[in-house]
Amino acid sequence: MVYLTRHEHFNAAHKLYNPTWSEEKNVEVFGKCANGNWHGHNYELIVTIKGNIDPDTGFLMDVKVLSAILQEHVCEKLDHRNLNLDVDFMSGVLASTENLAIAIWKQIVPHLPKGVDLHCVKLYETPRICVEYFGN
Amino acid sequence: MVYLTRHEHFNAAHKLYNPTWSEEKNVEVFGKCANGNWHGHNYELIVTIKGNIDPDTGFLMDVKVLSAILQEHVCEKLDHRNLNLDVDFMSGVLASTENLAIAIWKQIVPHLPKGVDLHCVKLYETPRICVEYFGN
Amino acid sequence: MVYLTRHEHFNAAHKLYNPTWSEEKNVEVFGKCANGNWHGHNYELIVTIKGNIDPDTGFLMDVKVLSAILQEHVCEKLDHRNLNLDVDFMSGVLASTENLAIAIWKQIVPHLPKGVDLHCVKLYETPRICVEYFGN
Amino acid sequence: MVYLTRHEHFNAAHKLYNPTWSEEKNVEVFGKCANGNWHGHNYELIVTIKGNIDPDTGFLMDVKVLSAILQEHVCEKLDHRNLNLDVDFMSGVLASTENLAIAIWKQIVPHLPKGVDLHCVKLYETPRICVEYFGN
Amino acid sequence: MVYLTRHEHFNAAHKLYNPTWSEEKNVEVFGKCANGNWHGHNYELIVTIKGNIDPDTGFLMDVKVLSAILQEHVCEKLDHRNLNLDVDFMSGVLASTENLAIAIWKQIVPHLPKGVDLHCVKLYETPRICVEYFGN
Amino acid sequence: MVYLTRHEHFNAAHKLYNPTWSEEKNVEVFGKCANGNWHGHNYELIVTIKGNIDPDTGFLMDVKVLSAILQEHVCEKLDHRNLNLDVDFMSGVLASTENLAIAIWKQIVPHLPKGVDLHCVKLYETPRICVEYFGN
Repeated sequence: MVYLTRHEHFNAAHKLYNPTWSEEKNVEVFGKCANGNWHGHNYELIVTIKGNIDPDTGFLMDVKVLSAILQEHVCEKLDHRNLNLDVDFMSGVLASTENLAIAIWKQIVPHLPKGVDLHCVKLYETPRICVEYFGN
Repeated sequence: MVYLTRHEHFNAAHKLYNPTWSEEKNVEVFGKCANGNWHGHNYELIVTIKGNIDPDTGFLMDVKVLSAILQEHVCEKLDHRNLNLDVDFMSGVLASTENLAIAIWKQIVPHLPKGVDLHCVKLYETPRICVEYFGN
Repeated sequence: MVYLTRHEHFNAAHKLYNPTWSEEKNVEVFGKCANGNWHGHNYELIVTIKGNIDPDTGFLMDVKVLSAILQEHVCEKLDHRNLNLDVDFMSGVLASTENLAIAIWKQIVPHLPKGVDLHCVKLYETPRICVEYFGN
Repeated sequence: MVYLTRHEHFNAAHKLYNPTWSEEKNVEVFGKCANGNWHGHNYELIVTIKGNIDPDTGFLMDVKVLSAILQEHVCEKLDHRNLNLDVDFMSGVLASTENLAIAIWKQIVPHLPKGVDLHCVKLYETPRICVEYFGN
Repeated sequence: MVYLTRHEHFNAAHKLYNPTWSEEKNVEVFGKCANGNWHGHNYELIVTIKGNIDPDTGFLMDVKVLSAILQEHVCEKLDHRNLNLDVDFMSGVLASTENLAIAIWKQIVPHLPKGVDLHCVKLYETPRICVEYFGN
Repeated sequence: MVYLTRHEHFNAAHKLYNPTWSEEKNVEVFGKCANGNWHGHNYELIVTIKGNIDPDTGFLMDVKVLSAILQEHVCEKLDHRNLNLDVDFMSGVLASTENLAIAIWKQIVPHLPKGVDLHCVKLYETPRICVEYFGN
């Protein structure tokens, strides 16, 4: 079994905001991340899959195909968007990096070929903060 | 003469939008950067000053003082903000990286000590796009 | 379960030196790392915690709180210090990256909130050498 | 138990080509990676070993010794070479990153000292694509 | 006047070889870079243009247009190619990084819009070696 | 004319300390950088030379020769040393990054071949602080 990783990139706006709380509570908990006029990030997305090597190609999976899946089902839906307002699969979800990583996992799984398993979604919000999700 | 450089970081939301144009024209020119619900970036700010070394300290300027100036007059005004809505010194200015670099230059100059000149403001919008401004 | 990672940074001096050995043996084993006048590094500290997401915040843990713990209990005690002479929790310990990673683990664990577990302390001594410790 | 990681680097030419296929099939599957005149990469090799700390040195293993093993048995055989033509341990193997990572694993294992286990060979083909192999 | 920079990437094979010299002389001067079976690199291309800001867009030039020019006239001709055999604009030229940077400069200049000047072509052959060319 | 750049690396200990001042004054001005037991850094050294291309080699200068000069006359004298105590060419000089960059310039110039000029010594003390010196 080998693990293959592909890095992708998208830019998005968001805010951290719990709609069941008062404005004051949101600012108290989330600080400047709750800014009503939004802020944003260059997200770095690092996706790892695992499985066996196809002896005919030497590939676990063609990384160009993996990249195309990530572009179509993840990056095109997030890039230059507002995570709170524009993204169907984040609707009703607090736009934290933790929740976004899990939502991205769910976007990818249905599109991987048989015999290839998703191993990890790693998402950098800034160069010094990241979240990893392994599926459970 | 030596050159001293300090890297700082801020996250912000923005959109590219010319208010004298129609919505259609904005989308035609700026593409997804014109998204009405904003997008955002991790901006990397790289500021270079120049001058002579103080023989008592071996410093052109104490880099902690330079960092404090950049924090107070630039980063605190931009970090976790909306460049189009929240930033006094970007008011009425198209929020392009080019215009932002020039505006940051103007924010820094008045606060440098005598004998220290601002040499360059370099601003990365993404890891693959940056702008430099040298003051004229 | 998700994993959240925060990068921190500190600079320190050290030498590799076993006080039960002769000077010659130390130089033979540790080479220039045994230089009696010390050398130093920009250490990059990468700490990963794991646990469940709080549905009210979307957070495993507020990364600003994690960063504050790392600053108070690790970085402030190591930054601009001599690992062999100035650091209480490294007293009597050979100042290798391996031992430092384990000592940092012990510094962090008592300060994490309930329900959050320390997963990994990763410590870069140079950009090409790092150590990871997972707690056992 | 601790994990120690060392980064090494080599440059090589290769092509992706299955000799049992027609030229057309190779181009169809491998695209421009099948270019008959070769292309190449700056490979980044990241090797992680695991084991217990030697109390006399504070080391899992002297990282200079690990680096020397990687240089002698891996990098010197790959650097400035053609993976398809010049490398004995890749003879008859499709020169994919997956297969190269596994072949590198086999090159390293016999040379590690007792009590030190190879944990992971991670190989970046480009800054955005990597493969990991853990030995089974 | 502002400066705008765009990073692009391509992978290629090459060798350093002077056809007017003997094989022995080539190996003596170029060492393993003269390997007859080629080697290769992940080249990082960093192109800087300069000029005035268009007040309607806030842009020196739309960076997507700059990127498209670099893709069409530089990267598509170099990526996954052999610099010595496959590239028309390197024909008859020693495939050093210095010569490649100058050749890339000549490929870009005719395609820039009026009022935009090419300032610098910076080309990394490895993460630790680069060449810059400023046009004369 | 082209510019060729080579990155090198060294680790060293130092403190910032003006021996004509009191201990109090040193701490007041230099803060924790004045720690009597030293601290240290992974310095990143980036040296740029300029000149014309040799038509026989396509080189401004063989980068391996440049690297050997930097190793012999700079890095071997600084690596794993104490800048205040162990380095002849820093004797009597405040060990600031500014002064170190100028001292490194002087170490390199006498060893460059005819027709090759030193253009810039760039020295990173941390990933976010650097100094450049251009020779006057």
